[in-house]
Amino acid sequence: MSNYHVAVVGATGAVGQQMLRTLEERDFPIASLKLLSSKRSAGKVVSFKGKDYTVEEATPESFEGVQIALFSAGGSVSKTLAPEAVKRGAIVVDNTSAYRMDPNVPLVVPEVNEEDLRAHNGIIANPNCSTIQMVVALEPLREKYGLKKVVVSTYQAVSGAGLEAIDEMKQQTKAILDGEEFTPEILPVGGDKKHYQIAFNAIPQIDLFQENGYTFEEMKMINETKKIMNMAELEVAATCVRLPVETGHSESVYIETEQGGATVAEIKELLASAPGITLQDDPANQIYPLASECVGKNDVFVGRIRHDLDRDNGFHMWIVSDNLLKGAAWNSVQIAESLVKLKLLS
Amino acid sequence: MSNYHVAVVGATGAVGQQMLRTLEERDFPIASLKLLSSKRSAGKVVSFKGKDYTVEEATPESFEGVQIALFSAGGSVSKTLAPEAVKRGAIVVDNTSAYRMDPNVPLVVPEVNEEDLRAHNGIIANPNCSTIQMVVALEPLREKYGLKKVVVSTYQAVSGAGLEAIDEMKQQTKAILDGEEFTPEILPVGGDKKHYQIAFNAIPQIDLFQENGYTFEEMKMINETKKIMNMAELEVAATCVRLPVETGHSESVYIETEQGGATVAEIKELLASAPGITLQDDPANQIYPLASECVGKNDVFVGRIRHDLDRDNGFHMWIVSDNLLKGAAWNSVQIAESLVKLKLLS
Repeated sequence: MSNYHVAVVGATGAVGQQMLRTLEERDFPIASLKLLSSKRSAGKVVSFKGKDYTVEEATPESFEGVQIALFSAGGSVSKTLAPEAVKRGAIVVDNTSAYRMDPNVPLVVPEVNEEDLRAHNGIIANPNCSTIQMVVALEPLREKYGLKKVVVSTYQAVSGAGLEAIDEMKQQTKAILDGEEFTPEILPVGGDKKHYQIAFNAIPQIDLFQENGYTFEEMKMINETKKIMNMAELEVAATCVRLPVETGHSESVYIETEQGGATVAEIKELLASAPGITLQDDPANQIYPLASECVGKNDVFVGRIRHDLDRDNGFHMWIVSDNLLKGAAWNSVQIAESLVKLKLLS
Repeated sequence: MSNYHVAVVGATGAVGQQMLRTLEERDFPIASLKLLSSKRSAGKVVSFKGKDYTVEEATPESFEGVQIALFSAGGSVSKTLAPEAVKRGAIVVDNTSAYRMDPNVPLVVPEVNEEDLRAHNGIIANPNCSTIQMVVALEPLREKYGLKKVVVSTYQAVSGAGLEAIDEMKQQTKAILDGEEFTPEILPVGGDKKHYQIAFNAIPQIDLFQENGYTFEEMKMINETKKIMNMAELEVAATCVRLPVETGHSESVYIETEQGGATVAEIKELLASAPGITLQDDPANQIYPLASECVGKNDVFVGRIRHDLDRDNGFHMWIVSDNLLKGAAWNSVQIAESLVKLKLLS
């Protein structure tokens, strides 16, 4: 097996840091590693496999000789620099929303549509965190029973909004416990007009609102699910909610399968043996997925699987995963591993 | 208007305390007030309208001369003492689950089925908190468009689990912020075998599990909604989740109406003028209901109303209310007010 020239763009961010830990842990075959960032973070020293790397400012020239570049530095950086990287021969795995709905860009969750990687034109998009964990759980069901309808309500962690949002949550929490004043400044959305208390609260807004009353986060879940599963006709609806949880997204998902007749026992068996899934479903012993227990693990955890009481083809489940891992860094590294496996990296 | 001999059972609990504040605030016509509790809490002194009352242990004889008794001291107390109160001529408004599904007991949310009070046999049941706020929002839709299906995912506050649960949440939160150890001892369910961290987490269990994989809380939402709305045929499904929120339940609700053709604008207009509802729905200005802002208010707050993108008869919304008020104390006092209005109190 060859080793590859790798670049990580956004190496000092929450996801970038996690990407480095995941590359270490997976022992990804690295010939050389370049850590890139904005001008602001350039010069920082980051350790990888016991060796210190100085973070450099990302420029078009940074990508000379790079074979694979993992981007997680915001959509505008990807828009500007991903084509420059591709021009210089790199394959880009982009963790922003910049290219996800581009028809020329595969949007990939390896457990679901790894083969779509073959059609890449240099850029591969990593889906939104809340979408990834859901489609991993849905795919085995789609394959066996067909899938007609999905209604999801999310319980999302603040780390999806970055390190500053985590700080804000902790500061606010402390202020409330101490009976002190505070002014929300970041959440729900750094770039929006108003900010609300996240500590001891639940905010039904993630990302900005669209004209149709849905947020961009909700539309990402809807559109990306259809694209990844290659099912334009799938009915998908989402309500996305931010919680005072540091890391670990939870999702309450209602589905209707095409075919009736499935039992909960069959579904549990199916999901227990599906790739990337850990079944945690034993109500009698209070076993179900918890955000607090998924942190640092690559899998998607599924439990609380119940038959709808009215529709034979209806099921409910609870899906939890580490939004920084399967929702971001791990899925990106997994795409890199799939590129190696499919011999798509040159 | 007459004044009435009133008893509050469970006067020292979270809901009991709130009932007293609500009776004060509503200026309920009280001739005499008896504060009753378990033996353990008897002797405590509680103030009402500036006057001190000594809490007495509730016994069958406590209800002599009482015309209306508001119970909120746990199901077993209601099972034992509510019939004794009725035997002595009182009407009982019971806030526990003891009688809710009893076919001889009306289960009432005044905005929805006030007239069911006329059929009472001494006991009237106050529904589960998460059910009440949902049916208040559903009723105007049912009336105008018919209702076929409801799928709800809840975001429930710990005050529904009592004052000790609130303490546990705060202690745990502090321990985590301070990097200290802690052992969960109460939540998700005091009487269950295992306990999990509630701070910075989301626990998909409220109340014990049933054989069918649903929790009792979920089955309460399902069964009570059908009973209150008098719609045995209504499809209802629920996933109930406990959050680190002190007070204020939120709900992500998907509905299908019988009739298609409704618009979001029409639904907003309908709900804005419906009893007990405050519409908070202006995405462009980030106006939507928040648990943190509902506390201390009697209304049910509805927002994030969206048309399903696939089904003409499908809608999504976000419903928030103070679980100790409309979810408990205020609905109980409101039932008492309805009994006065309908001349059912003798």
